[in-house]
Amino acid sequence: MNEKTNIPHLATAFIEQFQQKEQIFLQAQATIETWFREAWRDTPAPFYASVDLRNAGYKIAPIDTNLFPAGFNNLDPKFEPLCIQAIQMAVEHLPGNIDKILIIPENHTRNLFYLENIASLQSMLEKAGFKTRIGSLMSLEESQKIELESSRSVLLEPVLRDQNRLRLKDFEPELILLNNDLAAGKPEILENIEQTITPPLALGWSSRLKSDHFNYYQQVAQEFATLIGIDPWLIDPLFRNCGEVDFMKREGVDCLTKNVTALLEMIHAKYDEHQLSDKPFVMVKADSGTYGMGIMPIYETAEIIALNRKQRTRMATTKEGQKVTKVIIQEGVYTHETWGSDAIVAEPVLYLLDHQVVGGFYRVHSARSTSENLNAPGMGFKPLAFADCCILPDPSQGLNAHQNQFYMYGVIARLALLAAAREIASVA
Amino acid sequence: MNEKTNIPHLATAFIEQFQQKEQIFLQAQATIETWFREAWRDTPAPFYASVDLRNAGYKIAPIDTNLFPAGFNNLDPKFEPLCIQAIQMAVEHLPGNIDKILIIPENHTRNLFYLENIASLQSMLEKAGFKTRIGSLMSLEESQKIELESSRSVLLEPVLRDQNRLRLKDFEPELILLNNDLAAGKPEILENIEQTITPPLALGWSSRLKSDHFNYYQQVAQEFATLIGIDPWLIDPLFRNCGEVDFMKREGVDCLTKNVTALLEMIHAKYDEHQLSDKPFVMVKADSGTYGMGIMPIYETAEIIALNRKQRTRMATTKEGQKVTKVIIQEGVYTHETWGSDAIVAEPVLYLLDHQVVGGFYRVHSARSTSENLNAPGMGFKPLAFADCCILPDPSQGLNAHQNQFYMYGVIARLALLAAAREIASVA
Repeated sequence: MNEKTNIPHLATAFIEQFQQKEQIFLQAQATIETWFREAWRDTPAPFYASVDLRNAGYKIAPIDTNLFPAGFNNLDPKFEPLCIQAIQMAVEHLPGNIDKILIIPENHTRNLFYLENIASLQSMLEKAGFKTRIGSLMSLEESQKIELESSRSVLLEPVLRDQNRLRLKDFEPELILLNNDLAAGKPEILENIEQTITPPLALGWSSRLKSDHFNYYQQVAQEFATLIGIDPWLIDPLFRNCGEVDFMKREGVDCLTKNVTALLEMIHAKYDEHQLSDKPFVMVKADSGTYGMGIMPIYETAEIIALNRKQRTRMATTKEGQKVTKVIIQEGVYTHETWGSDAIVAEPVLYLLDHQVVGGFYRVHSARSTSENLNAPGMGFKPLAFADCCILPDPSQGLNAHQNQFYMYGVIARLALLAAAREIASVA
Repeated sequence: MNEKTNIPHLATAFIEQFQQKEQIFLQAQATIETWFREAWRDTPAPFYASVDLRNAGYKIAPIDTNLFPAGFNNLDPKFEPLCIQAIQMAVEHLPGNIDKILIIPENHTRNLFYLENIASLQSMLEKAGFKTRIGSLMSLEESQKIELESSRSVLLEPVLRDQNRLRLKDFEPELILLNNDLAAGKPEILENIEQTITPPLALGWSSRLKSDHFNYYQQVAQEFATLIGIDPWLIDPLFRNCGEVDFMKREGVDCLTKNVTALLEMIHAKYDEHQLSDKPFVMVKADSGTYGMGIMPIYETAEIIALNRKQRTRMATTKEGQKVTKVIIQEGVYTHETWGSDAIVAEPVLYLLDHQVVGGFYRVHSARSTSENLNAPGMGFKPLAFADCCILPDPSQGLNAHQNQFYMYGVIARLALLAAAREIASVA
């Protein structure tokens, strides 16, 4: 690892394949940016997003696109000016004149880590020049001030509805900024609101499906791969989905078995085509859900049949006790990046505001392997080096330069963002 | 001086008055930003600008707004991501689909310092994803590559005109970005061009007058001062202008004498009103011109009559041998900021792209006093601290925090930018 620049180490076996792609991306930079500009004109970017990437060297792909990103508190404070500028841009792209913003956070009062994120978000919106308050969907009798470890605090205030407008007692926002993924369903108080709500309600996890997102991503990856002349598989995780699966009653297991088998075969074929010796695996995930729950790696179809009670219970519910019914089976992408001398497995998480990459960090997990989900208790966060991050390709510095590696991260994250933009356009 | 954060020292006598204003600006931050948002909706910002400020503590004001800014090479490289993002925003605000940009620089081939600026500008435009080339207005037979001290190079290429379009031999730009202030007049080759030219030709120094700019600035300062409830004089330099003045033939000296006298009296009155003990002075400048030439401080009207031949010669011509005819007499604003233990006089210069403050530096000059023009041979440049700069007010940090001081700089620079935007709108 290079301590100085905070860059994980890509396993040596995969560096050459990574740099081949990097070279293609760098040479096509102007073409890529031209293509993105056109794409954003056709389909405006979401207000914000975070994208989890996996970098296997031979393949780099998004595995999750969060439209209600938490973790702004994990970004290097040096990212702040960039975030603030991008927030101004994001608001400028929304209809109407917006001066006052109401953040609707998750219904957490004890998850102080999450509330640090809300404090960071509020602070940035205020520095961007917007009056910003926090309206809680919990049925609060009165405002609740919560002190945080950072010695900041957040003030959760009861949201009121006045005809078709949301407000606080003494605050009438023009914009409702959702930082609540609505996993528990669309709250009635948010339905048919006159003010702009962003991201739109329909993108909450009560209606959104990961498989829809990856359908859009597949199209985007296909178009992009054609543009720069690569196999789309190098940036796109294969996937299949199953409708009703009840892990407890073992219903729908046929569909699961069939699709896991088919997907493992497809991955095998791609590994053979690209002469890769990694062992293919798939990730079985709740098709709607978040927080890294209900996620399971599968290497052999037989494992599905053999799931024990504990494993089935873990798969059967996700955040806030929602039952997993629909399931997505996604190609597992190894992360061959490791952090530090202990070689802890690391995956990059990129943050976007409007269509700008504004920062990111590495999610690391010392107890997990290269094929496992790192979004789990015990994970840690390592900031990406700022000045190098994601928007500063410099071909003259060669393929070992981190800023060129980060440029590729930034492109892939924006492809996932574009898929999300198309998702939003389809429900708007 | 605080070496750690690279902040000049404001003379102690003036700190209290400075912090009074700072307090007002911080408290009004949301109001100020709302006001700016509306202003940019009415009048789009110029593509770029740099603004020279003078900070006397009791008064902080712009004294020059450059619409063809050089000096991008003087910005801290850490500003680059912010610049790149703002460039994307600036281009997005222009009509049409722009992928290729032609920079028209000044006609310098030996001013390597200026060409470093062009190299920095080109590099940022390319990193922002635009194909960018440099078209020289000099009658070049062939392309000329100039190596720079930074081990970069610039390639000056002959500009061709094809009907009403500008091009290079093998490059058809959609945008012509002027970095040439056209002091020598509007070149015919740029007239009636189909492509967007920004800033517009009419803003070149062959047609633009400083007094027009400061007329617009006066209106802007008036509106802004009303908004936050301060005396507009605290942010606005008084001025008067004279039509035809021939320093060599001593023609037009009557007008000059009369206006210098009147202006000194007005400044006296304001100094008395605000109980200031500084000695009033005015700056006599070419009304169209740049590069800090043809600028002279005057404390007593009698000095005008007593100008010796050398002084008159210096006033009589400006850049590229242009004769000074029109003259602006501007209130002199002391700079009470000094740099380092030698207390070198310093003035902030802020850079803007679109309506974003993207960075700046202090111009310092060891051989000049607090009332003199620092834009002169012998000047130096000290970068502003990045993370703190200009867009991150934080009232919780109090009035001594540099980021709050910088926020005020950023607001004043944007007021000057808005004046320039109105100038542009009036000729467009």
